[in-house]
Amino acid sequence: MSRARPIRLGMIGGGAGAFIGAVHRFASRLDGHYQLLAGALSSSPERARESGAALGLSEGRIYDTYQDMAVAEAARADGVEAVAIVTPNHMHFAPAKAFLQAGIHVICDKPLTSTIEDAEALAKIAAKANALFILTHNYTGYPMVRQAREMVQSSTLGALRVIQAEYAQDWLTESIETEGQKQAAWRTDPARSGAGGAIGDIGTHAFNLLRFVTGLRVGELAADLSSFGPGRALDDNANIMLRFDSGARGHLWASQVAPGNENGLRLRIYGDKGGLEWAQEDPNRLWYTPFGEPKRLLTRNGAGALDAATRISRIPPGHPEGYLEGFANLYSEAAIAIRAFQTGSAIPPEVHFPTLEDGLEGMRFIEAAVKSSSANAGWVAL
Amino acid sequence: MSRARPIRLGMIGGGAGAFIGAVHRFASRLDGHYQLLAGALSSSPERARESGAALGLSEGRIYDTYQDMAVAEAARADGVEAVAIVTPNHMHFAPAKAFLQAGIHVICDKPLTSTIEDAEALAKIAAKANALFILTHNYTGYPMVRQAREMVQSSTLGALRVIQAEYAQDWLTESIETEGQKQAAWRTDPARSGAGGAIGDIGTHAFNLLRFVTGLRVGELAADLSSFGPGRALDDNANIMLRFDSGARGHLWASQVAPGNENGLRLRIYGDKGGLEWAQEDPNRLWYTPFGEPKRLLTRNGAGALDAATRISRIPPGHPEGYLEGFANLYSEAAIAIRAFQTGSAIPPEVHFPTLEDGLEGMRFIEAAVKSSSANAGWVAL
Amino acid sequence: MSRARPIRLGMIGGGAGAFIGAVHRFASRLDGHYQLLAGALSSSPERARESGAALGLSEGRIYDTYQDMAVAEAARADGVEAVAIVTPNHMHFAPAKAFLQAGIHVICDKPLTSTIEDAEALAKIAAKANALFILTHNYTGYPMVRQAREMVQSSTLGALRVIQAEYAQDWLTESIETEGQKQAAWRTDPARSGAGGAIGDIGTHAFNLLRFVTGLRVGELAADLSSFGPGRALDDNANIMLRFDSGARGHLWASQVAPGNENGLRLRIYGDKGGLEWAQEDPNRLWYTPFGEPKRLLTRNGAGALDAATRISRIPPGHPEGYLEGFANLYSEAAIAIRAFQTGSAIPPEVHFPTLEDGLEGMRFIEAAVKSSSANAGWVAL
Amino acid sequence: MSRARPIRLGMIGGGAGAFIGAVHRFASRLDGHYQLLAGALSSSPERARESGAALGLSEGRIYDTYQDMAVAEAARADGVEAVAIVTPNHMHFAPAKAFLQAGIHVICDKPLTSTIEDAEALAKIAAKANALFILTHNYTGYPMVRQAREMVQSSTLGALRVIQAEYAQDWLTESIETEGQKQAAWRTDPARSGAGGAIGDIGTHAFNLLRFVTGLRVGELAADLSSFGPGRALDDNANIMLRFDSGARGHLWASQVAPGNENGLRLRIYGDKGGLEWAQEDPNRLWYTPFGEPKRLLTRNGAGALDAATRISRIPPGHPEGYLEGFANLYSEAAIAIRAFQTGSAIPPEVHFPTLEDGLEGMRFIEAAVKSSSANAGWVAL
Repeated sequence: MSRARPIRLGMIGGGAGAFIGAVHRFASRLDGHYQLLAGALSSSPERARESGAALGLSEGRIYDTYQDMAVAEAARADGVEAVAIVTPNHMHFAPAKAFLQAGIHVICDKPLTSTIEDAEALAKIAAKANALFILTHNYTGYPMVRQAREMVQSSTLGALRVIQAEYAQDWLTESIETEGQKQAAWRTDPARSGAGGAIGDIGTHAFNLLRFVTGLRVGELAADLSSFGPGRALDDNANIMLRFDSGARGHLWASQVAPGNENGLRLRIYGDKGGLEWAQEDPNRLWYTPFGEPKRLLTRNGAGALDAATRISRIPPGHPEGYLEGFANLYSEAAIAIRAFQTGSAIPPEVHFPTLEDGLEGMRFIEAAVKSSSANAGWVAL
Repeated sequence: MSRARPIRLGMIGGGAGAFIGAVHRFASRLDGHYQLLAGALSSSPERARESGAALGLSEGRIYDTYQDMAVAEAARADGVEAVAIVTPNHMHFAPAKAFLQAGIHVICDKPLTSTIEDAEALAKIAAKANALFILTHNYTGYPMVRQAREMVQSSTLGALRVIQAEYAQDWLTESIETEGQKQAAWRTDPARSGAGGAIGDIGTHAFNLLRFVTGLRVGELAADLSSFGPGRALDDNANIMLRFDSGARGHLWASQVAPGNENGLRLRIYGDKGGLEWAQEDPNRLWYTPFGEPKRLLTRNGAGALDAATRISRIPPGHPEGYLEGFANLYSEAAIAIRAFQTGSAIPPEVHFPTLEDGLEGMRFIEAAVKSSSANAGWVAL
Repeated sequence: MSRARPIRLGMIGGGAGAFIGAVHRFASRLDGHYQLLAGALSSSPERARESGAALGLSEGRIYDTYQDMAVAEAARADGVEAVAIVTPNHMHFAPAKAFLQAGIHVICDKPLTSTIEDAEALAKIAAKANALFILTHNYTGYPMVRQAREMVQSSTLGALRVIQAEYAQDWLTESIETEGQKQAAWRTDPARSGAGGAIGDIGTHAFNLLRFVTGLRVGELAADLSSFGPGRALDDNANIMLRFDSGARGHLWASQVAPGNENGLRLRIYGDKGGLEWAQEDPNRLWYTPFGEPKRLLTRNGAGALDAATRISRIPPGHPEGYLEGFANLYSEAAIAIRAFQTGSAIPPEVHFPTLEDGLEGMRFIEAAVKSSSANAGWVAL
Repeated sequence: MSRARPIRLGMIGGGAGAFIGAVHRFASRLDGHYQLLAGALSSSPERARESGAALGLSEGRIYDTYQDMAVAEAARADGVEAVAIVTPNHMHFAPAKAFLQAGIHVICDKPLTSTIEDAEALAKIAAKANALFILTHNYTGYPMVRQAREMVQSSTLGALRVIQAEYAQDWLTESIETEGQKQAAWRTDPARSGAGGAIGDIGTHAFNLLRFVTGLRVGELAADLSSFGPGRALDDNANIMLRFDSGARGHLWASQVAPGNENGLRLRIYGDKGGLEWAQEDPNRLWYTPFGEPKRLLTRNGAGALDAATRISRIPPGHPEGYLEGFANLYSEAAIAIRAFQTGSAIPPEVHFPTLEDGLEGMRFIEAAVKSSSANAGWVAL
């Protein structure tokens, strides 16, 4: 089996100092499926050029704007086949549209856009485009998340009853957005983030994760959003009660003002036959309790690991894989999908990545949560 | 300092096979402050007699009914000074009334009563009685819970913002109440438990704990109660959003259908200066994070332990104390209070035990949760 | 079933301020099997009297010396049936001899004595005595330790290969024995502790625990003992390699100079079919891995609990029992044995408590370790 | 700052199915410092060719032998600048020699060689070579290991007293080397592994880790090696007592027959001012106890992180980095060193990677352990 050549990749945003741009680059490199060749890395031309040089891009493929890049790369025989969009939320829509319409695959950071209108417009554009759209809700790339999903789908837990999801951080405990912290500044700014603060930044991750693992549809939610940081326009803490179509019930807590929490994403799922518990900070482990039996510690690639998990696992159990590996799994899933697309073959059924539809769901979740909270936490259908 | 003689104790309920009766006896014995001398241990006279004999009570002080016992013991010069009431919820009111009116101190299991009407009536009776009323919300007896309370009260966490409380169990995953399991039968029966299932049995514990530690008043709540066990009349899972008078927000989850959870009572408190996390299954530890500093593991009687915790701690750190020790702490607090009462002196300010007022609050919490849930989880003032 | 009256108990040592004396009293009270009635609580008559009064002993049964007490109590019709000896190590032998010869059962703290000669002499005395001898290697009283033992004995782990035992503390990191800390003073004094420092105080616990759980005999050991505390005469850190008669190998580490360790007693046992791991600071849990399967978390009284564990467990899983409960289990085992002795019946086979033979083994362990260390850690037969 | 072009890399060994070859490739790719261009990937020419093609090597740079490759690549203007040697232990020496003598940098898996003679010969060769030698004792690449080292070096723990290192696995519990398991076959074969079994495969890792973190020299050791797997020629369990030149004492346990352990590498270090504890399976955390204060949980890039750790950390705290990231850190350190070498500049002092000297030490450790064990665990100088 000869390995396919790497996919030619471009990047929008992600200049020097950007956290998530660097993550996408690590993730694209790890499995060797991509080669970064072009970029519009910053809205500042000078920073774009410096960043491009630092990344080893050839001068002619460092662009001032994504528009220029879309036109030029689409015209090259060796133009990029895919782009990673890693700009703040309000800057997802326009480049995604431009590249999709140019027939270039889009790997886009979450949440999908900053407004539900943009999201819906993008869905229509994507439906007509000759290119794939991959949304990097990266936590679905962790092997033990796949294991959990497979266990739920094969009814290991029986009928699901109770879902508890949470994503707690503490980095916005103080109002650092007023002190020039760039990451905090755009994430707390409605103009750049959209209507959701913590719920958009991390709540959508928790929501996407529970949707991915359980497969259950949320029928309605009741949300109580708060802003504790002085002067903060968007929510930094959210309690959201969930009612699933199946009759299951749940709760989602997202907070960025909970001291002692770094990236406390945690999912607990309980059915009438068993329970599962997973925490992102300890991602190689999954706790499984068949009701009435001792709790079991499942490990990545360890005893009891299912194909769904081992196929995206690189190394033996006991040697931890981390966040970048999970993120890279989405890039590798995308590579399989892009190559299938290019050869006109079907994407294998075991391949999973979040799509535009997942992104739309995330936007509807934000919208519903904001609407519910405005209505004193009344129930809002999703 | 010569030790006071043990307080003469009686018990209502708690015959052979009863879980919580045995717990009260362990708790009353551990520190040597009580001597069990009389009891109306079962509604079945035969079982009452057998149980009394097994406990070493003298024959003349094994009673068929609490009424007989209240009359007889009040008349004896060496009659019991206090009684423990450990019957199912609907059987708290009547004996509590009888003994309070007889001037005998009452140590009563939680929740206070099975109806809010009983609770309010009892409050009036107690107000006029020449006796103390102690409610065994036992988790407030854990030393690290006292440590947490003290840290909150001394503003170690700054202004509180977010409170997450939960109490998860799994023993009602299957409808064992239909199979003759006695503990399950009365706890799922509205006639014996009152309007609350999981929220009454364990939700009130979580509520009392967060109230005790934070000192914050809950202004209103929105509750979504469910019954997942087939044929179950009372809630076995509850999501309850909380709004505190201070502006803090919180959530309380109680469940008895979460496989893998034994007694998963957990409290997390976040303020603008730090956070605390405590779990009942690991009670000798308390996680404290001063915002911006590494997380610290405080241990019972270890470095950083405050007087509030060490005064009710028996042994050095690293040798765990458990549930019975915490329960015993309430009995010992009660003993201090009873002796103070008997000598007409004030109860020292460091002594804490849940009172009738706490019990009333718990009943109002149950009532509000049920009312909210009936109104589609609308907000109900507390 | 009518409960037997409490056993009349006396105490030698354990005056105000003594740690282990208080522990024995808690342990004797918890299950209601004993009533403390007499004591020679201190070598200082004044302190003996104050301590006795504080414990509620009647004046006539507070003795200045254990000798007086042995004579007087043996002569009383209602004299004590058993005594707890809780003095420093060098003060175990004489009172143990006196009470055994008076036909009074002895419950003695560990290690057995301060010299091997005393230990052997005591063994001969006990063999002729009309009384039982119980040594409080209390960690064998934890339910999950019993569970582990039962699993080993029923070959759940297959043939044992590797045993790792450790007991790490940090309280002697600084030479507090020179600063008037009473507990430290006698434990670091050869005249009062005997030849072993850390190995005597805590190493014997680890040794006894591994012997109890595995049932394997140690054939020889090689010990490297050190004293890190400036000016300290006895070892405060010990590495000891173990060779078992069965061919299994092991290591025992005892330290009192390991900052961050409170009472880090931990036992790991590996056979050709599975492994077990237990830690005293989290005593209600036992990790069990059947080779090739996921690790399982066994809990006290939880799923998979064996009779050997549940029979000495008081409350349901998830409500932790602790150190005092484990200690009390030995007292309760002793009570069963004493009552059997008194009625001439056999001690039931499920009842376990450390005996004089275990104490002798512990003394030989100390002696062998000291001898080995003196011989540059050469192997010494045990 | 323009990024240097990737270093041209070759690989010896690591054909399809090899675990550690894949690891080296992931590690070399993650940070973008290398490009794999040539290889002698297998002793089977057919497998070498298939593996090379699968890795995207051009046909002319897939070699049948490392000898051919060394000659050919040294002759090319665009020949590889460095090679990764990932063959079994007995196949490290010859290619390392060939490439070093060809002036090509060598990145070699551990242990250094299969015999001490080879190791010493290689040291001489390297000393004269115009190329660097990097040994992938990868655990030194974990950020929290660097943090620990820095804390020790800055005397945060005071004078070190006690070191406990262990590396426990369970994959050789059964004698799978007799069942065609390739990884097990060579690791248990003296002809391919050398004199050490578990001590060579994982014991050297633990030894290197404790040396790296503490900086202490081991003066002598006493080792008790065992082979539990039926028919196994090399040790699969080792207890090794350590005496450090400084007076500190330690123990190292390595086992491959401990069911329930995956890659249980753990280091605990205790000084007179504090203690540190780190476990490889949870590598983003480091427990630090300043003596007399509460234990603190340090996290990678979290509060209290030192430059030594953050400079090799990629993402914020709470998003775990894993084994591959730690391994990649050594590759990136090597890249800095290679580039410095190429430009004639000094390697920056903060850059660390294991060298030939470390490899020699590891070989001496194996030799001493085997020698000690043969002499009934007598002390052997190191």
